[in-house]
Amino acid sequence: MARVYNFSAGPSMMPESVLKKAAAEMLDYAGSGQSVMEMSHRSKIYGTIIEGCEAVLRELLGVPDNYKVMFLQGGASTQFAMVPLNFMKTGKADYIVTGQWAKKAYQEAGKYGDAKAAASSADKTFTYIPKVTPDIIRQDADYVHVCYNNTIYGTHYNTLPDVGNVPLIADMSSCIMSEAVDVTKFAAIYAGAQKNIGPAGLVVAIVREDMLGEVREGTPTMLDYRIHADNGSMYNTPPAYSIYICKLILEWIRDEIGGLDKMNELNKYKSGMFYDYLDNSNMFSGTVVKEDRSLMNIPFVTGNEELDKKFVKAAEAAGFVNLKGHRTVGGMRASIYNAMPVEGVEKLIDFMKDFEKNN
Amino acid sequence: MARVYNFSAGPSMMPESVLKKAAAEMLDYAGSGQSVMEMSHRSKIYGTIIEGCEAVLRELLGVPDNYKVMFLQGGASTQFAMVPLNFMKTGKADYIVTGQWAKKAYQEAGKYGDAKAAASSADKTFTYIPKVTPDIIRQDADYVHVCYNNTIYGTHYNTLPDVGNVPLIADMSSCIMSEAVDVTKFAAIYAGAQKNIGPAGLVVAIVREDMLGEVREGTPTMLDYRIHADNGSMYNTPPAYSIYICKLILEWIRDEIGGLDKMNELNKYKSGMFYDYLDNSNMFSGTVVKEDRSLMNIPFVTGNEELDKKFVKAAEAAGFVNLKGHRTVGGMRASIYNAMPVEGVEKLIDFMKDFEKNN
Repeated sequence: MARVYNFSAGPSMMPESVLKKAAAEMLDYAGSGQSVMEMSHRSKIYGTIIEGCEAVLRELLGVPDNYKVMFLQGGASTQFAMVPLNFMKTGKADYIVTGQWAKKAYQEAGKYGDAKAAASSADKTFTYIPKVTPDIIRQDADYVHVCYNNTIYGTHYNTLPDVGNVPLIADMSSCIMSEAVDVTKFAAIYAGAQKNIGPAGLVVAIVREDMLGEVREGTPTMLDYRIHADNGSMYNTPPAYSIYICKLILEWIRDEIGGLDKMNELNKYKSGMFYDYLDNSNMFSGTVVKEDRSLMNIPFVTGNEELDKKFVKAAEAAGFVNLKGHRTVGGMRASIYNAMPVEGVEKLIDFMKDFEKNN
Repeated sequence: MARVYNFSAGPSMMPESVLKKAAAEMLDYAGSGQSVMEMSHRSKIYGTIIEGCEAVLRELLGVPDNYKVMFLQGGASTQFAMVPLNFMKTGKADYIVTGQWAKKAYQEAGKYGDAKAAASSADKTFTYIPKVTPDIIRQDADYVHVCYNNTIYGTHYNTLPDVGNVPLIADMSSCIMSEAVDVTKFAAIYAGAQKNIGPAGLVVAIVREDMLGEVREGTPTMLDYRIHADNGSMYNTPPAYSIYICKLILEWIRDEIGGLDKMNELNKYKSGMFYDYLDNSNMFSGTVVKEDRSLMNIPFVTGNEELDKKFVKAAEAAGFVNLKGHRTVGGMRASIYNAMPVEGVEKLIDFMKDFEKNN
């Protein structure tokens, strides 16, 4: 079958050139006579892969030298525990609750201390990002946690939250590498790889060195950032193949796209087309306030549940898959990550126009 | 380059037919128009993969219905914490310390309660498996933990440890699916996939249902077996591609090898050849007592460090890679997992005979 346009919220599309390279190298990576999946993680050749991946990540994102980069496992959900276990030093942390994942992070932190929802957009089904200013943040909190892009609700911090002098920690799972970010504004950034930078089963964590220190008593060794930082993500066997794919994707961003500013331009172009269409459609409309719209996840509805269902089914038959919205929002959602080609969005819009005409 | 014979302790060789299938399906799995890496884990088609993987695992190993099978992340090292967090109900557990990993599991449990080393083979550099009988086990312990095959030291429980009525928990990372085991003798079995059943970044856990219950206060959600058991390993995004490769490997064992008894026969044949050679060599000798020898990991030495180094280097040049022993044992180690072809062992023996003649 021809490749489909996959609008899944994640895992989702990968650049075709990356998949082709991975297929071509499957039985013999760079003349090693081995698949990357078969390599000892302690071998010299695998060392070039994990170190290469870190190098291109640092280069693209401009990660300063006083930040550690770690390749971890367990998804962002495991980070929800690692963050308080490692960083809730005095037992107090503030959370901005902007969706289901942000809420899960907040609830997990509540196991370990005084986690406070400093702001929330639950009052309007998470369709906006609350204003974050220093006066709503406890200035003696150990950190403030935000979910920078909300996959389910399609919102994004289009201006940096202003938390004063409190360390800012961001879950960037669904926007990492979609735009340049000033890493120095964050004490820690983490992201599940499965949306923009790799297969599921890999998490990238970027942590400022001064954040590392004593962890909460009883913290599992594998949930201690210091263990991974001190061992170059090799305390135990890392998710080696996923790191290799991550490297290929980051190289694609650097070499084929031209870096994060170009990537962001492309993402703005793709989502811009789609939002323009939604804003002018008589059938479809977006669910998020304009100023907080995500470039990555675009929820939309017809206002009629039956029609939504009909649309999702017809779209799937036409090769536009995974457009069904999250069960908590309903309607549809188009996730347009880095790897979605421009023509995927153009063709979806054409399809929607036709559907609108005929229904 | 031609494919090498890779004697790595893990990650290690995979069946060539599996790698070929994975390469062929990389851009389009079963007419879906997607790579498995790109699939929504909630899609119907991915459901057939994860459920198919569990089904063939249950079939091969004969897992009874009252055991849950989970696909997790974080390596066996994360299991070292999950086991006490979930199962140390009264705060007391016994460990059999047969090597570095068994010791790490024991030390991690010590964070959470009264972990006791009921037996250890540290006195003889872990070259044997201590006799495990009910009288050395606290019969009111919550469980006994064993490492069933010791990757570094090359030992294996060739008879089931007799722990009386205490639940037996086994780390089978380096022997899973190399032989049939009577699952009913174990309360829980776990294994990192990267030696016999998949890429690094996947752990299989098989837990008897009655073991699941209240966990220790403060246990991270992601380290609670019940969460994963109740959600079919889909509480969060599972390591989806690794599960797909696991499925292909298990199908290879079932369909190409003919099941676990055949697999075990083949493993006995391969390691038997190698041990026979070692036992008759004037240069090389095994380091483990005969009755506790592993079929998977075979450490051996010449007795001369310089000669060991020369051998490892010459072997690598001849296409036999990763034969260097673990730094704590020295010498050499041939890891001969399921996927190592018979001719790989035959050719290595021929190479060793030549080396012996010429040195």
